[in-house]
Amino acid sequence: MSFKGEQHPGVQAPTPDSQGFRLNHTMLRIKDPEKALAFYTRVFGMQVMRRLDFDEMGFSLYFLAKLDENEQVPEEQGERTVWTFRQRGLLELTHNWGTETQADFAYHDGNAEPQGFGHICFSVPDLEAAEAWFDANEVEFVKRSDQGKMKDVVFVKDVDGYWIEVVQADRLSALGD
Amino acid sequence: MSFKGEQHPGVQAPTPDSQGFRLNHTMLRIKDPEKALAFYTRVFGMQVMRRLDFDEMGFSLYFLAKLDENEQVPEEQGERTVWTFRQRGLLELTHNWGTETQADFAYHDGNAEPQGFGHICFSVPDLEAAEAWFDANEVEFVKRSDQGKMKDVVFVKDVDGYWIEVVQADRLSALGD
Repeated sequence: MSFKGEQHPGVQAPTPDSQGFRLNHTMLRIKDPEKALAFYTRVFGMQVMRRLDFDEMGFSLYFLAKLDENEQVPEEQGERTVWTFRQRGLLELTHNWGTETQADFAYHDGNAEPQGFGHICFSVPDLEAAEAWFDANEVEFVKRSDQGKMKDVVFVKDVDGYWIEVVQADRLSALGD
Repeated sequence: MSFKGEQHPGVQAPTPDSQGFRLNHTMLRIKDPEKALAFYTRVFGMQVMRRLDFDEMGFSLYFLAKLDENEQVPEEQGERTVWTFRQRGLLELTHNWGTETQADFAYHDGNAEPQGFGHICFSVPDLEAAEAWFDANEVEFVKRSDQGKMKDVVFVKDVDGYWIEVVQADRLSALGD
């Protein structure tokens, strides 16, 4: 028997109506795709599965995946689009054309007021190696693993200021105890 | 040869430094866990893999997964925490204690100004069946599949007002053409 979920006030058992649903992606608006793509492809090893351009509405969408080793992705564009929307855990970056040349333009990170969205999180195999890699790429830290109350949890910022949590799963077995 | 990512300005090839990185979760703050858990477990079939309570800091974290059929999850709590942080595409809901009793309290959805975060997205096997299921649960729509410029794309709101995109992958092969 596999685990079927913790019971807390409000929790209901899934019904057949949601069978096959998958949490496909999270969308963040970005100011400058060249900078955001450089950051997410170099620092986090993501790849662009599809860019979709909407000329009439003046925006482009970039769907990024961090693929596991040997993961197979279709080459053909239409098949690849369908593949993209069937995955779990992608990142969609939305670029409204022209923001990259506006000196004062910036998006809201959700952690300053008004709060809402908090962060995305990457799991990594070696937290200290990841911190060294972030330093080598001059990534801005919010919190290092040896700072604050929650040890073993790192927060960095992406180029738009969104927070990215970084954790090493096998160091968190006692978290919240 | 599997597809290795589209080339766009800024894109770099992944290095071994990001090997094993996984996009684990997206965190959203919620006002009332009982309402949010009812929504995500009933309407989207998610299950609570772990609740982590931080008494000293007055908040709780709920890690939710939409499991595939027959997906195995460890029962034992520590193992399950580690399993949770190794997954792709989870949803973390943060509850700062006490917000649920404040009548005027609300989080910011990121789509009203100031903009930033846009939405999360679920892929579903049958878009019309999903729309009927949302109606049966009195879910608020932002946009139905037959409305607006992007046909076949649905947006609903969760109980905190965050937008959830809902798509059927095999209907999107020509999206952006």
